[in-house]
Amino acid sequence: MDRSVITHWFKGLQDEICQGLEQLDEVGKFQEDAWERPGGGGGRTRILEGKHIEKGGVNFSAVEGKLPLNIAKSLELDEADFFATGVSIVLHPSSPMLPIIHMNVRYFETGENTWWFGGGIDLTPHYVDKEDAKYFHNMLKTTCDKHDPDFYPEYKTWADDYFYIKHRKETRGIGGIFFDKLGLPSKDKNSSFEFTKDVGKSFLPIYTQIFKRNFEKPYSKKEKEWQMIRRGRYVEFNLVWDRGTKFGLETDGRTESILMSLPKEVNWLYNHIPAVGSEESKTQALLVKGINWV
Amino acid sequence: MDRSVITHWFKGLQDEICQGLEQLDEVGKFQEDAWERPGGGGGRTRILEGKHIEKGGVNFSAVEGKLPLNIAKSLELDEADFFATGVSIVLHPSSPMLPIIHMNVRYFETGENTWWFGGGIDLTPHYVDKEDAKYFHNMLKTTCDKHDPDFYPEYKTWADDYFYIKHRKETRGIGGIFFDKLGLPSKDKNSSFEFTKDVGKSFLPIYTQIFKRNFEKPYSKKEKEWQMIRRGRYVEFNLVWDRGTKFGLETDGRTESILMSLPKEVNWLYNHIPAVGSEESKTQALLVKGINWV
Repeated sequence: MDRSVITHWFKGLQDEICQGLEQLDEVGKFQEDAWERPGGGGGRTRILEGKHIEKGGVNFSAVEGKLPLNIAKSLELDEADFFATGVSIVLHPSSPMLPIIHMNVRYFETGENTWWFGGGIDLTPHYVDKEDAKYFHNMLKTTCDKHDPDFYPEYKTWADDYFYIKHRKETRGIGGIFFDKLGLPSKDKNSSFEFTKDVGKSFLPIYTQIFKRNFEKPYSKKEKEWQMIRRGRYVEFNLVWDRGTKFGLETDGRTESILMSLPKEVNWLYNHIPAVGSEESKTQALLVKGINWV
Repeated sequence: MDRSVITHWFKGLQDEICQGLEQLDEVGKFQEDAWERPGGGGGRTRILEGKHIEKGGVNFSAVEGKLPLNIAKSLELDEADFFATGVSIVLHPSSPMLPIIHMNVRYFETGENTWWFGGGIDLTPHYVDKEDAKYFHNMLKTTCDKHDPDFYPEYKTWADDYFYIKHRKETRGIGGIFFDKLGLPSKDKNSSFEFTKDVGKSFLPIYTQIFKRNFEKPYSKKEKEWQMIRRGRYVEFNLVWDRGTKFGLETDGRTESILMSLPKEVNWLYNHIPAVGSEESKTQALLVKGINWV
């Protein structure tokens, strides 16, 4: 399968998701910045600042060039040409009763015969709603099970490990799935692509459902304050630990496209500890690895 | 010279600076958290949330234990015991007309005979005032020149390189001085300590002067908005590039003490570019390496 087929499919996914999210938001429209990468390739960054989605990015990119040596090393590769395409999404809702969501699907190629797919979806509620969490993980499990019964348990654990804020000893949210190097060493490209497509296609129905269940819930100043603090943790994860962000910044990616993942308004309060028995402390207690939500 | 002499002096510096800053702030008082490090040692974190200083931290620590392997490697050392003590300061003022300031002085020991001093001061104005910048750099040059005429040019360049936000291709502010491994391989410990002491002692008079010149300047919503954006860049530097922050987070340092450097309120706006000819764009144009301020 040619890389152009994959690239074309990812572009279509971006279009579809943008359209769906504009309907959810009711007011906001995506603004597109098309950009070119000096080393090769480019992308379409789309940002929405709306009514329900305070700041959301749905980015497509397809970049190519020489792999920087440190990146090559970390991938256990020799210096080589690379090609990478994908769709990345982060939505920061206005309401603290709506979760932050992230999705990424990607395809990577280097040298003659090395290629793989990767991706993931994870949910970061400001307040963990157990029904939402169950729904979210069940939807991901259903998507995975269509392809391989080992996928969900494996990729769920991988997400727990990946979306982990080591210096806080807490997970970024309730996890989801994360997979990388799918297709290595010799699996069928078609089946890997089909799985990646299904992950991509699951995003819109999942977030739509969670959105509709929560967007009208009332909240007060207290919940907004907690949201600002939780957003701080999101920033800490993305800037300190996220390998995708690191890869982007180190391969001379477009900074504004990469850092669209950062929320608009964020607070850091020194040593904030939620009150015992509060809703905030209940959420905090659920930010741990290994919870079985299905 | 025994490490206890150095530790004692740093504690005294923390006391003196806290006292001076409380006077400047008029209202805020430092709250202390004394903490112990599981692996050995501990510190005194002092945070002020005041009238003029929205959030400020003046931290002392003296920690010891086994050097993590990756840190040892990055310092070109074998696995070994280490001892590190120092004072770290970051002040985020309420007024956008006042600059953010950072100061750090530190002493590091490993193995039998390896020790060095390090430190730095740098200024991050939300709006660069050229008189302030000249004053700031002249004060640092005077401090340096007392010890060695080569220090200021060398450490000024080092600060330009260190306090650099690579993915933005801009400096964090107007720089200052940065030095590390002072005393290596065989210089006199006394003279290295005396220089480090003078850097530490210069902090309070320098910030007091800059504070008094600016704290009553009027500002509006526009300047506050710009401050929020510049604070975002400060966070990006600290979490993505700052080796001190990295060292702290990787040696299992106390997260809340390390991340006191992050401002209380921060904004990220997608692709914000200041208007041509505005005060904001004039400041932006000065965030480059190699400006000679003296």
